[in-house]
Amino acid sequence: MTPEEFRLYGHRAIDWIADYLAHPERYPVLPSVKPGQLTDALPAHGPERGEPMSDILADFERLIVPAATHWNHPGFLAYFANSATPEGILGELLTAALNGNGMVWKTSPAITELEQVTLRWLRNWSGLPDDWFGLIYDTASTSSMHAIAAARQAADPESRSKGVARGLVVYTSEQAHSSIAKGAIAVGIGHDNVRLVPVDAEFRMLPDALREMIERDLAAGLRPCCVAATVGTTSTTSVDPVPAIAEICERHNLWLHVDAAYAGSAAVAPEFRWALAGCERADSLVTNPHKWLLTPMDCSVFYTRRPDVLRRAFSLVPEYLRTEQDPRAVNLMDYGVPLGRRFRALKLWFILRSYGREGLANVIREHVRLAREFAREVDADPRFELAAPVPFSVVNFRYKGTDDDNRRILERVNAAGDVFISSTVLNSRFTLHLAIGNYATTAAHVERAWQLLQEATEA
Amino acid sequence: MTPEEFRLYGHRAIDWIADYLAHPERYPVLPSVKPGQLTDALPAHGPERGEPMSDILADFERLIVPAATHWNHPGFLAYFANSATPEGILGELLTAALNGNGMVWKTSPAITELEQVTLRWLRNWSGLPDDWFGLIYDTASTSSMHAIAAARQAADPESRSKGVARGLVVYTSEQAHSSIAKGAIAVGIGHDNVRLVPVDAEFRMLPDALREMIERDLAAGLRPCCVAATVGTTSTTSVDPVPAIAEICERHNLWLHVDAAYAGSAAVAPEFRWALAGCERADSLVTNPHKWLLTPMDCSVFYTRRPDVLRRAFSLVPEYLRTEQDPRAVNLMDYGVPLGRRFRALKLWFILRSYGREGLANVIREHVRLAREFAREVDADPRFELAAPVPFSVVNFRYKGTDDDNRRILERVNAAGDVFISSTVLNSRFTLHLAIGNYATTAAHVERAWQLLQEATEA
Repeated sequence: MTPEEFRLYGHRAIDWIADYLAHPERYPVLPSVKPGQLTDALPAHGPERGEPMSDILADFERLIVPAATHWNHPGFLAYFANSATPEGILGELLTAALNGNGMVWKTSPAITELEQVTLRWLRNWSGLPDDWFGLIYDTASTSSMHAIAAARQAADPESRSKGVARGLVVYTSEQAHSSIAKGAIAVGIGHDNVRLVPVDAEFRMLPDALREMIERDLAAGLRPCCVAATVGTTSTTSVDPVPAIAEICERHNLWLHVDAAYAGSAAVAPEFRWALAGCERADSLVTNPHKWLLTPMDCSVFYTRRPDVLRRAFSLVPEYLRTEQDPRAVNLMDYGVPLGRRFRALKLWFILRSYGREGLANVIREHVRLAREFAREVDADPRFELAAPVPFSVVNFRYKGTDDDNRRILERVNAAGDVFISSTVLNSRFTLHLAIGNYATTAAHVERAWQLLQEATEA
Repeated sequence: MTPEEFRLYGHRAIDWIADYLAHPERYPVLPSVKPGQLTDALPAHGPERGEPMSDILADFERLIVPAATHWNHPGFLAYFANSATPEGILGELLTAALNGNGMVWKTSPAITELEQVTLRWLRNWSGLPDDWFGLIYDTASTSSMHAIAAARQAADPESRSKGVARGLVVYTSEQAHSSIAKGAIAVGIGHDNVRLVPVDAEFRMLPDALREMIERDLAAGLRPCCVAATVGTTSTTSVDPVPAIAEICERHNLWLHVDAAYAGSAAVAPEFRWALAGCERADSLVTNPHKWLLTPMDCSVFYTRRPDVLRRAFSLVPEYLRTEQDPRAVNLMDYGVPLGRRFRALKLWFILRSYGREGLANVIREHVRLAREFAREVDADPRFELAAPVPFSVVNFRYKGTDDDNRRILERVNAAGDVFISSTVLNSRFTLHLAIGNYATTAAHVERAWQLLQEATEA
């Protein structure tokens, strides 16, 4: 394709996206395709000769879009809803065109330095310590795996050379994201050595239970190495008592990692800074702008106050990537598994600048307001009950009936195509889960969800 | 930003990119910035209030572009050169707009199924077995880490629950990419348990040496678990003798992983199928379309004939992501660390369709032709010598002088801004490294590199 053809099709793609952003409700949030349907609609073999871009774009609209779950639909109210803002899309577009790879400073100073600059801005807006080091990974799962690897390195410096010694133990709450256990499995600590600390009635880790577990493990000759606290758990967005947990970690010299993948973003609004209380005592923290900070996938921000440990765990410089040493030329490949690094900071910079701190805070505030409004309606309806507090923009609730009643309601609500809400299990009961996080979600979308829920109940 | 503002700025961005693609030589390949220069040019704090997109795009052009290393410049002849083709950029643009997340089938059937379809096409074009399972990770480092984790799982099924037992051993050649050792460190096997097998005069792993190392380790009570062979090593693109290595792996029941990150793409041209000979006996293989298959970063394809092992190593389904079981609804989160998954297959589909197999094969052929032409000129010049064979599109060579002479030549060549070549160390000697992999690179760019090299020698 020539640059002029790119101009032509690029303008067409931009127009398609502008229409998509203007009328997201054209598509049902969840597609109606059956498993295998798209596969069967596509050729079993790729084409021997090239095909015109007009055909490919037509197939994109005819086959791909109807098989997509529309995460960027303002009626997407499942999991943690997120956004591809127009600003973020422009950032991704330019990132793709430059196609830089920030393995080392020299292979793209812009990638390395803009990553440091945007993460400094974000750290400052969130009230996190000025001297923390930050870098961007793809997902919170990857960020947390690196945190656990750093904890392993700190507790067992020989693990890098000799392999992991058995007996290292990681602690997280029963409500923590599965990525903590998966990270412990990945780095060789093992699933049996992940302790799930019980939670209180509001789904927050019980520090006393944590302390007892650690003491029991120490008495048994095991080696506690890491506690992963959560600020905004996946099901209920509960906030673990980080100050009390930090106290315990300091006493026992354990790495404290904070998974603030979702709720960390809220700290750009001063009234939500409380959620990060105590986090300044953490060894590492992950927060995902691709969750609640309007940034397209993927962009997971990892901060650590001990980058030297992360570096000791992962730095390995081959001859073909050896560069001159300069203290201001950070080589980000030294801090993790992936060598190649996309220019993810560009879209983040676009968003931080175009919204400003105040603009982002206002989006967060409005999402929380909408969620609390929805929670009030649920709470006021005798057929429903809230299943957890609503500290941020996520509401967990149940129809006062059986789990199967709730499953049927969920299916019926989602079948309409206007909204998509998801589910979880709390206190062993199937629970409905509504999350607000898309920049285009308004009161009308949330009201529509509530209307559909009421109708489903009556049916 | 409203959809109409997006249309306006989107068209501007497309026009900027069209011009960038039409005149890539406007910018020096390597920027002239000093470490910290971009950082110092940007504000220390983010803006409190939003700024207009016109200002942000102006700053992108004024500050970011001049600080970028231009990987998409046709004079980028370093490392493994790669491409952001116009087709790939369009794919990334639409991926950003949809912003889908293919954690499980349901969260985007299009992401999951198009990934399976494009990887089937590519597998077929490459002559790899029909029954292999494929998925896309971000980078080859991540892919190889997963391969080693699967090998660990196969050799030591208890490692998932109890943690890694000490004594597992991974083998790879002295010329292998650093990601193999890094993967072994990450999954808890340890750097001391990575054996670097010697290579022959053409930088290919010596199977007899591998066999001896394995036998020695077995005799010492260790547990060999994985061999990582390379098809297209990072420095010289040498191809390990996979059939002989597969024989050894089968005898000792070791996981055979093939790192074909660069040269795997060549197999779309039948005359380069030889490079994958024996790979049908491998347990896993990685090939990166974002290297030599014209696809923007990131897109690393991982194939395995034992997806069940990978799944046993990593599957962990939390309640909030539990979905109905359907054999055609694959949940890709079950096969690795990252939970979130971008729609990377879209750009790959755009490229496979718009080029066709033949079109891609022709690009590969032309790159190899250009590299061999360059190698002939080097070989014919009495001042220079080739440092390795040229099986693909990479040439390693030296000025017949000291290492420092070669360093000075490299610096002078790159300072001109027209081309960027890199270096490596072969047989303990500093070696110049020229790689062709950008879709826009022509004979003129390679001739310019040769001209600059000659001038630098004379200076």
